[in-house]
Amino acid sequence: MILYESRRAPNPRRVRWFMAEKGADDIEIVDLDLFGGAHKTEEYLARTGVPQVPALTLDDGTTITESVAICRYLEAVYPEPNMFGRDPKEAAVIEMWLRRAEMLAANPLMQAVRHGHPALAALETQVAEVSANNRQQAERSLALFDRRLGESRWLGADRVTLADGVLFIGIDFARLLKFQIPEQHQNLTRWFAAMRERPSAGAGT
Amino acid sequence: MILYESRRAPNPRRVRWFMAEKGADDIEIVDLDLFGGAHKTEEYLARTGVPQVPALTLDDGTTITESVAICRYLEAVYPEPNMFGRDPKEAAVIEMWLRRAEMLAANPLMQAVRHGHPALAALETQVAEVSANNRQQAERSLALFDRRLGESRWLGADRVTLADGVLFIGIDFARLLKFQIPEQHQNLTRWFAAMRERPSAGAGT
Repeated sequence: MILYESRRAPNPRRVRWFMAEKGADDIEIVDLDLFGGAHKTEEYLARTGVPQVPALTLDDGTTITESVAICRYLEAVYPEPNMFGRDPKEAAVIEMWLRRAEMLAANPLMQAVRHGHPALAALETQVAEVSANNRQQAERSLALFDRRLGESRWLGADRVTLADGVLFIGIDFARLLKFQIPEQHQNLTRWFAAMRERPSAGAGT
Repeated sequence: MILYESRRAPNPRRVRWFMAEKGADDIEIVDLDLFGGAHKTEEYLARTGVPQVPALTLDDGTTITESVAICRYLEAVYPEPNMFGRDPKEAAVIEMWLRRAEMLAANPLMQAVRHGHPALAALETQVAEVSANNRQQAERSLALFDRRLGESRWLGADRVTLADGVLFIGIDFARLLKFQIPEQHQNLTRWFAAMRERPSAGAGT
């Protein structure tokens, strides 16, 4: 398998984080220069259909894009430690928190950075209102995660799952906008520190 | 099981569409009045944690929110017809198209409606630029789906899957903004007509 990714981009980092948690170190990594347009070449688009990283090319030539689809495929190849759930109910609770992490916090923070940070003006036609609106949306969601992390050590289950990875990477990426977890969210702050101490925290950065 | 939903809202409609495709007609349905704030009562929030529909309460009292997490749970309860993939590779391709449908088209169109339609001003602090930006993003993505539907009758696999449902419901919801598939996207137009003819098309509307 070959993983096409780009250092510093948050979606590939989800896959690298997931691989680190799994101890999956036998996948070939190709680092693309997005600012040089390496994800927009004819060859890359013929492979992926979209100018996006990450992309995972399987041994039979099939290419999968979308970070969560890639991670779920890797879960089948590297089943332990389990990160998507051991039965339908646990899987549903994990996916619920994974999607909340993504839709309510990580994706809005990514949009806030894409539309708000000067370094990304080369990749996006930036609209200031879109950046501000997304940032506010993410900020409003933090109370929900803080409450959950007061009841549960990890976001999706009694162990680390992809839900934790997605929230962690989303918040960490927003440091580019000097975004910080507000002090009153003590559970979230404690969880974030615990996530940063894991060996997986530096993968793909 | 009890499904909390709201007629006309697009995310609950995904679950109702999925149930119709599965022939799952033994789930109790509770229709909430969002404009009356039925999703913001103390009782509802104690159940779900978030003021959102759909929510599925299982027989043991666990409540799952997030339409795709609910559908994946229902796939385990009603395995046929298969709509999430029969092996890891097929599941990855379906999830890739499901997420593209969601992230590139359905969610942006929903945001465009939420931020752009007068009837939704009661549910959202509307920002015109956010509506316009989301609509443009969705319009740009249609060529990708049109190309795919020129190669494959259905979006995610050789049969209808949730990827088709999510794209169909997203585009159909945007009719509120008089959104139409541009004529040059003939494959997408043909596929949309086929989706509209299925008995599932009216479920949850």
